[in-house]
Amino acid sequence: MGGDHGPSVTVPAAVAFAGAHPDVVMILVGQEDILRQTLQRAGATESARLVVRHASETVAMDEPPANALRYKKDSSMRVAIDMVKAAEADCCVSAGNTGALMAIARFVLKMLPGVERPAIASFLPTRRGRTVMLDLGANVNCTPQHLLQFAMMGSALLGAIDGIERPTVGLLNIGEEDIKGNDVVKEAADLLRASTLNFHGNVEGDDIYKGTTDVVVCDGFVGNVALKTSEGLAQMLGVYLREEFRRSLFTKMTALIALPIINRFKHRVDHRRYNGASLLGLKGIVVKSHGSADDFAFRFAIERAYDEARNNLLELIRQRLDPDNDALEVAAL
Amino acid sequence: MGGDHGPSVTVPAAVAFAGAHPDVVMILVGQEDILRQTLQRAGATESARLVVRHASETVAMDEPPANALRYKKDSSMRVAIDMVKAAEADCCVSAGNTGALMAIARFVLKMLPGVERPAIASFLPTRRGRTVMLDLGANVNCTPQHLLQFAMMGSALLGAIDGIERPTVGLLNIGEEDIKGNDVVKEAADLLRASTLNFHGNVEGDDIYKGTTDVVVCDGFVGNVALKTSEGLAQMLGVYLREEFRRSLFTKMTALIALPIINRFKHRVDHRRYNGASLLGLKGIVVKSHGSADDFAFRFAIERAYDEARNNLLELIRQRLDPDNDALEVAAL
Repeated sequence: MGGDHGPSVTVPAAVAFAGAHPDVVMILVGQEDILRQTLQRAGATESARLVVRHASETVAMDEPPANALRYKKDSSMRVAIDMVKAAEADCCVSAGNTGALMAIARFVLKMLPGVERPAIASFLPTRRGRTVMLDLGANVNCTPQHLLQFAMMGSALLGAIDGIERPTVGLLNIGEEDIKGNDVVKEAADLLRASTLNFHGNVEGDDIYKGTTDVVVCDGFVGNVALKTSEGLAQMLGVYLREEFRRSLFTKMTALIALPIINRFKHRVDHRRYNGASLLGLKGIVVKSHGSADDFAFRFAIERAYDEARNNLLELIRQRLDPDNDALEVAAL
Repeated sequence: MGGDHGPSVTVPAAVAFAGAHPDVVMILVGQEDILRQTLQRAGATESARLVVRHASETVAMDEPPANALRYKKDSSMRVAIDMVKAAEADCCVSAGNTGALMAIARFVLKMLPGVERPAIASFLPTRRGRTVMLDLGANVNCTPQHLLQFAMMGSALLGAIDGIERPTVGLLNIGEEDIKGNDVVKEAADLLRASTLNFHGNVEGDDIYKGTTDVVVCDGFVGNVALKTSEGLAQMLGVYLREEFRRSLFTKMTALIALPIINRFKHRVDHRRYNGASLLGLKGIVVKSHGSADDFAFRFAIERAYDEARNNLLELIRQRLDPDNDALEVAAL
């Protein structure tokens, strides 16, 4: 029921995804009357592969997570995560309140052994392909051990999604000559160097979009700022470009001619294709869609969860974080 | 002598700036033979307004700042800052090694009373104009008091450069519902609220380019990552756009037609016009140009230093940070 647009976005996306993946059963969790109406409007009907599961409550986008956790035991979010816990669902996708989703998921599913903190991970487009960045906002204060665990989880995620056996890992840092990062980052670098991960070393902000490494690790404060700053810059550049092409009759005609080029460009940098942030470290697969996602974007979030479930992400993380396992061997499984 | 291109960039920029500002005396500090040759190549000669001051040493771009500070007593950087200290120059502009510049400036000039840490501040383009952001990398570990001082210095900078009397101040934070930033940021918000500054409240990464506030304050780690991430994203989008316009004969012809539009767009987002980061909090005006600046960009760094000197930035900062002064009155001076 979540997100800025609710079922009008999530239901059509689920219907389309089920249509494209005959092996999938979609369980739509929320207020059943609304879900059935929306299904109908999407030209679909309830079936064995499009199941409606009633949940009487909803978590508001601005609701305090503690509130949602304590009082909304029959929210769509809670019911969906309970189903993952009970193995009635392989994964959960939500466009709702991030803090509430994280709090409920952590409370219900619990953490994987060896993971102290969950992390939010997302793919970002780069000049060389794409990069996984984490944490994007779950933890504001991280220890070096947390950053090491994030690196392991990010590596496992790339193993599961892109099949990369030994993803390179970069530790986000700053480049001033006299001050190579704070103490946490320095210690994290030592831990990463001593680990079996494919540690590239420190990277700077511009390395994210250069695609210098497959994984970029940072604390949630820095990661969230970097991500939001990117969103703001991309929006500003988009507005500027549009304004220039709308300035006069001549520029509008040029825009028409340039349309195929602009569309190709827009397709390449379309953030909707990167929608879907993984809540990593939990004993269950939970993917958070951007709240403002449309149905095109929401499908990518479903696809992320589907790929994680299909490729056994939890087992990959478990093995990487098991001290008796050699990460090298695990990655090659 | 500094920067990636040395005097071949800085000297022509200085000559052009002197030409446009009859009230200015430019002192070119560095190896005199090279400077004289470069002056000649730029079609200028030494004069009362284009003075050459010999310095026998240079600080390498990758030299450890401690090394530069201790052993390079006759570097161009050191001589220039010594001249500011001796009031033989009103300000210093360098495209050299940032860490060394900061270390030497701090050692020679010392801090203004009430400022515990210097900060690096820069203007960034926004949808509504421009914003001053600091710190961009001088300090990785900041206390709430440091952030408050940065806010005061940033406000003073806008007063000096743009004549804004009561600039709005935003504190960079993250938006996750359950974790509104770390303890330092929370305490800094309390200090800012209690100050006489025009405190807007917390802002998120995307607010930087939205232009939500005139000043954005953060610690140097976060600020540096945000800035470098922006550089990386802008470069990637530029590469993508170029690639799409060069894809075929048709797209190349379209590019020719669209050239005036693209040029206007490029002009609006031209980072060279924002070149020049102010080293704030010192008893002297020091501006750092991007190392890779061309002479067009370097002129903007000179202009920044010129405006700061002309509009008495140091006095504005001093007054704002003097506990006996009311910041409101100071801003209105």
